[in-house]
Amino acid sequence: MTAHSGPRWFEEALARSGANERLAAQLRFVLELDKAKTVLRRTYLTDGSRLEDDAQHMWHALMAAIVLAEHAAERVDPIRLALMLAVHDVVEIDAGDTFIYDDAGMATKTERERLAADRIFGILPPDQQELFRQLWEEFEEHDTATARMATAIDRLLPLLMNRALDGRSWREHGVSFERVYARNSTIEQGSPALWAVGRQVLEQATAESLFGAGPGARGAPPGGEAEG
Amino acid sequence: MTAHSGPRWFEEALARSGANERLAAQLRFVLELDKAKTVLRRTYLTDGSRLEDDAQHMWHALMAAIVLAEHAAERVDPIRLALMLAVHDVVEIDAGDTFIYDDAGMATKTERERLAADRIFGILPPDQQELFRQLWEEFEEHDTATARMATAIDRLLPLLMNRALDGRSWREHGVSFERVYARNSTIEQGSPALWAVGRQVLEQATAESLFGAGPGARGAPPGGEAEG
Repeated sequence: MTAHSGPRWFEEALARSGANERLAAQLRFVLELDKAKTVLRRTYLTDGSRLEDDAQHMWHALMAAIVLAEHAAERVDPIRLALMLAVHDVVEIDAGDTFIYDDAGMATKTERERLAADRIFGILPPDQQELFRQLWEEFEEHDTATARMATAIDRLLPLLMNRALDGRSWREHGVSFERVYARNSTIEQGSPALWAVGRQVLEQATAESLFGAGPGARGAPPGGEAEG
Repeated sequence: MTAHSGPRWFEEALARSGANERLAAQLRFVLELDKAKTVLRRTYLTDGSRLEDDAQHMWHALMAAIVLAEHAAERVDPIRLALMLAVHDVVEIDAGDTFIYDDAGMATKTERERLAADRIFGILPPDQQELFRQLWEEFEEHDTATARMATAIDRLLPLLMNRALDGRSWREHGVSFERVYARNSTIEQGSPALWAVGRQVLEQATAESLFGAGPGARGAPPGGEAEG
């Protein structure tokens, strides 16, 4: 008996192959990961064909990590940053994607995601469980330079993707410039260089009226001065 | 003038932000990567909802690399293995996915992918261009333990996913057991332990007649003995 079993054909193949329990657990986890490909986010792909899913997003984010790590506010290990982003939304297989502008959802997010981490990472052997769990907790706690840079990348990507489609997701959800600006200004903590770009993208977007209705359609950010 | 420019809004934001040419090139590359999310493969997601795309596949493969690296035939660096798989299909943004059972497509694959690598990796600053290019070439040359393990994972994942849907993709393309077995038996070079599992999955699948028409619907592999 194991806490997590795969489908019958899979368990039979594992048993007949002579795989030990460690390999069996690892392969069960790998098969489980396929589910991240059907967890949809609120951002559209830049060709507008459909919503992005978590697997696509995590791949995009980890690739961005390798390429952009040198722009972190403090020196970070690009590999640790990439691994953190590679795993940061796996808990959403159970907990679902929580839209960053959904305050009610954000209030219950922590508990839902903790249960998800217990179950999903719990499929793995203890040492690997620990590796992923630590990376995910560090990301969530947002208390290290690596985690702050990971958040910067996690927010910059949908910002760029939304802008590429003339703010489609912002407009569909009626999100104002102020809310987008406030949520995304945390990019600066992780990477002033990335925020300098993200901020310009937002300022142009609001100048072109790409945001949702509300008090947001303005030409300048609240309390901010243009950089660069 | 740059060899590769992003959309107008993007170039304007880069210019106004004061980003240097290195950061600008890196961000252009990151934006370009979004296109991998619309390159479709021949494998369905295990819930059957749609075909897998390259971004999803690369994420799945690199996560499998971290978890399964210890089962390589020879000791490999899990990080290098993961990075190799994270980038191995990026060239398909231009070259498209070549179905492994399409002999005509496979014949022109090398040249198409080399041009793609020149263009896509060429967006990056030289040092990062070199990093990705080396990883991709090592993967393609299949001449190191890391590359062989990467191929093992690259093939094992669709094998498991196809089996999870009762061989849907194999049957749609009329691929016989012999062809699937022959293509996938290279898993053994990278990881005998993974092949022991993959082989059992295939043997069960043919016993349950999950393959395409042709001489393939048999109970035992050609010239093989059951393991485990």
